[in-house]
Amino acid sequence: MEKMEGFKKLTRIDVALKLASKECSRVSIRGEVINIEKAPGRILAEDIISQYDVPPYDRASMDGYAIMHEGSFSASPTNPAIFRIIGIAEAGGARKRIGEGETVEIYTGAPMPEGADAVAAAEDCIRRGEEVHVLKPVPKFANVSKQGEDLKKGEVVLRKGRVLRAWDIGVLAAVRIREVAVRAKVRVGVLSTGKELVDISDPGSMEWTSIVDSTKPMLKSLLNEVSCSVIDGGIAPDDVEEIRSRLVKLADEADLLITIGGTSVGRKDLVPEVLRQDRASKLIFHGIAAKPGKPFGFGIFLGKPLFMLPGYPVSALVGYERVVEPVIRSLIGIPERRRRRVKAVIARRVPTTPGLRHFLRVRLEGEGERLVAVPIALTGSGLLSSIANADGIVVIGEDKEGVEEGELVEVELLDG
Amino acid sequence: MEKMEGFKKLTRIDVALKLASKECSRVSIRGEVINIEKAPGRILAEDIISQYDVPPYDRASMDGYAIMHEGSFSASPTNPAIFRIIGIAEAGGARKRIGEGETVEIYTGAPMPEGADAVAAAEDCIRRGEEVHVLKPVPKFANVSKQGEDLKKGEVVLRKGRVLRAWDIGVLAAVRIREVAVRAKVRVGVLSTGKELVDISDPGSMEWTSIVDSTKPMLKSLLNEVSCSVIDGGIAPDDVEEIRSRLVKLADEADLLITIGGTSVGRKDLVPEVLRQDRASKLIFHGIAAKPGKPFGFGIFLGKPLFMLPGYPVSALVGYERVVEPVIRSLIGIPERRRRRVKAVIARRVPTTPGLRHFLRVRLEGEGERLVAVPIALTGSGLLSSIANADGIVVIGEDKEGVEEGELVEVELLDG
Repeated sequence: MEKMEGFKKLTRIDVALKLASKECSRVSIRGEVINIEKAPGRILAEDIISQYDVPPYDRASMDGYAIMHEGSFSASPTNPAIFRIIGIAEAGGARKRIGEGETVEIYTGAPMPEGADAVAAAEDCIRRGEEVHVLKPVPKFANVSKQGEDLKKGEVVLRKGRVLRAWDIGVLAAVRIREVAVRAKVRVGVLSTGKELVDISDPGSMEWTSIVDSTKPMLKSLLNEVSCSVIDGGIAPDDVEEIRSRLVKLADEADLLITIGGTSVGRKDLVPEVLRQDRASKLIFHGIAAKPGKPFGFGIFLGKPLFMLPGYPVSALVGYERVVEPVIRSLIGIPERRRRRVKAVIARRVPTTPGLRHFLRVRLEGEGERLVAVPIALTGSGLLSSIANADGIVVIGEDKEGVEEGELVEVELLDG
Repeated sequence: MEKMEGFKKLTRIDVALKLASKECSRVSIRGEVINIEKAPGRILAEDIISQYDVPPYDRASMDGYAIMHEGSFSASPTNPAIFRIIGIAEAGGARKRIGEGETVEIYTGAPMPEGADAVAAAEDCIRRGEEVHVLKPVPKFANVSKQGEDLKKGEVVLRKGRVLRAWDIGVLAAVRIREVAVRAKVRVGVLSTGKELVDISDPGSMEWTSIVDSTKPMLKSLLNEVSCSVIDGGIAPDDVEEIRSRLVKLADEADLLITIGGTSVGRKDLVPEVLRQDRASKLIFHGIAAKPGKPFGFGIFLGKPLFMLPGYPVSALVGYERVVEPVIRSLIGIPERRRRRVKAVIARRVPTTPGLRHFLRVRLEGEGERLVAVPIALTGSGLLSSIANADGIVVIGEDKEGVEEGELVEVELLDG
C-alpha cells in the first residue's frame, strides 16, 4: 500500500482545461455529406453559395393590382387613377403582360406581369366591375419582392463553421441544396473499469451484491447531448494488460477516449499506469483540485487524447462537465454550455477546503421573497441521488474556505 | 375579389395562445416503453420505485483500514491504536471478517468486512509491516457508505412527469432498470399548400422559376427539436377538396396538424375554408395581431387541433414560436423555451403599428461599451435571410408605436 497517501499534486480545473484543450486542438474531425433534414445542430463544413436567385423573379408581396406606377402619379380618393382589369395573376401561374392603363388582379407570391412595376395594395383600391380605382399614388416597386431580394445567385448564403439552425435548413432548401457537407461527429471510445461492475444490459450475470455500472450510461447520454458518436468498449476488469488491449482497439476507431474508474492512487491507479508503461503515451495530469472529482486524469494514448474519469457518477460528472465537454464543444465548434443562473442565499454554512474547487449540489426553495439554496449532501461523491434531486450547482472557488449561512451565492440551474 | 380587404378581426397573440392551449389540453399523448439509452429528454410516464438498495451493502468510501471503531477510541500520534492486518478488501472481492484488534486494508468501493464499522483513512495511518498504527480516533461509520445510502429499496427514485436527464439514466441503471415507460412523441401531421411550390426532394420537377418549399423543412427541424414525430403530408395544390382529403388522412395518424400557406384572406383562404365547410370542424381564430405572422389561424379538424401557419418562412416562424411550440411543450410536459436575453440600444427609429405585436430581426454590434441592435429588414416577412442573418429578435408590444433611435430594448438571442 505504498502510495495510499493521496495524489502528489493536484491540477487546478482551469489549468486542466487548458492542458487538455491544447492537446486536443490537434484532433481533426473529418467531414461527411448528409441530407439537410438531418443537418440541424451540425456544423457546416463548406461555404454555401447560392446557385439561384430567391425569389427567382419579381413577385407581388401583397394582394392587389399590378400596374405601371406612373399611371397612379396624381391619384387621390376624389380623383382616382383608373385601370382596366385584364386578368388574374396567382402564385404558380404563368406570367402575364400589361399595357398602359391596364392591370391584373394579383395575389401574394404571383410573378409580376411584364410591364408592371408596382402593386397597388387592395386596401388602397376600389373595384368597379372590370375596372379598379386606385386611390393614391403607388411608388415604383411598391409591394414587389424583387428577384434575388432574399438570397442572391453567387452570394455566400451560409458560412462554413456555422451551427445549422432550423431556418438555415429553410435557406438550404430555398437555394435547392439537398445535401450538405458537415463536420463528422466526434467518435468517442468509452471504457469502464472495475471487476465489481456489471453492465445494465447483462442481467444474467447479476446477483444482489452486483454493482451496476451507472456512470457509463450517464456518460453516453451526456455525449449524445453534444452529438458524439459513442463506441462502447464495455467493462474491463482491474488489470493493466486487459485495459491496455481494450484501449488499443478503441484508439483505432475513436477520435478521443474516455475511461471510467481506475484513476485512484495506489493499487487502483490502473489507467494512468497504462500510460506510464507505454513509451508512445504520456500522462499529462492526474488528480485535479476539485471536490468531488479529484481522481480525474488526462493523457495521450497512442496519439489519442484520453480522459480518465473517476468511477463514481457525481465525481465523473464534474470532470466531464468542467473539462471533457468544453473540449468536445470546442472541437466540434459549438458554443459552450450556458446554464441559467440565479442568485440565492445558502441555507447553512458549508466549510470547504481551500485550494479545491467545490461543486455543491443544492435544492432551491422559496422562503418569503428569498430564494434559498439548500445543500443536498456534503459528502458522498458516489451519490447519484444527490444530483438527481438537485435543482442546481453552487461552485465554490479555490480561494474560499466555505460559504457562510445566509451568504448570497450563484446557482447554476440543472434544468436545461 | 370580394374579400381582398384584409382580416376582419385580429386575435392578440396571448389570446391566441390561450385559445389554442385550451383546445389542445384535451389531446392525450400515449405512452411507450423504451430502452433507457434512448430515454434522455423524454418524459417519464411512471414512478420508478427501486427494487434494490444502492449500494447493496455497506462499503468503504475511502482507501484505508477497516476496523471496529472502538479500538481507536484514544488513539493519537504519540499513542496510536495498533491493528493487525489480516487481508485486503477490494471492490468486487469477497466479504472478509475481522475480530478485535484486527483490520483489513480496504479500497474504495469494497464491501465492509463483517465486524468492521469504520474505515481509518490511509492518511491518518502509518503502516509498519503487518501492522497499522491509527493516529486518531475514528468515529463509528466513518468513511463508510451505508447500504441504501444513495437509493433505497421501496423508495420512489424518479417521479412520473420528469424530463429524463443524463444522470437519471444513471439512476435507472443503478436500480437495474433497462426499459422505462415514457410519454410517446407527439405525432404532428404537416401539410404545405400552394401550386407554386416544389419539394426539395423532387429535383426532377424543378424549373428555374420553381419556388422550393423552404418553410416545411424549417418547420420539420423545429418540430424535431422538441422531439415530435413528423408525418409529412406533402404539398397540396390550391384546392379545398384536395387539402381536405390530405388532412383527413393526416388526422387519422397524427395528434395534431399543421398546415403551411393558404391562410390569407380572399381567394387564398383555402385552409380556413376547409374548416368552415365541415360541420364537425371549427375555425377558432384566423388572423393574429402580429407582424410578421398575421395570416395565422387555429381550429379543430375532425377532432384534431389544426394550426394554420402562413406560407412565408419568417411569418410561419412567428406563429410557430409564439403559439405552436409553447402548446406542444406543455402537451409533452417539457419546460418553455428560454432564450438568453441581452439589453441593447436600437440603431434607428422603427415605427410600428399600434395593436400589432412586432418581431424585429436584429444584428448585434458592439459600439464602444454599448451593444447596438441593428434592425435587419423592416419589410419582407418572406425573407429567410432576415432570420438567418439575425443575432436576435426584439419584440415590440401592441401598445407601442415603435421604438426610437437609441432606445434601450431587450433582445432575445437566437443562438440556443
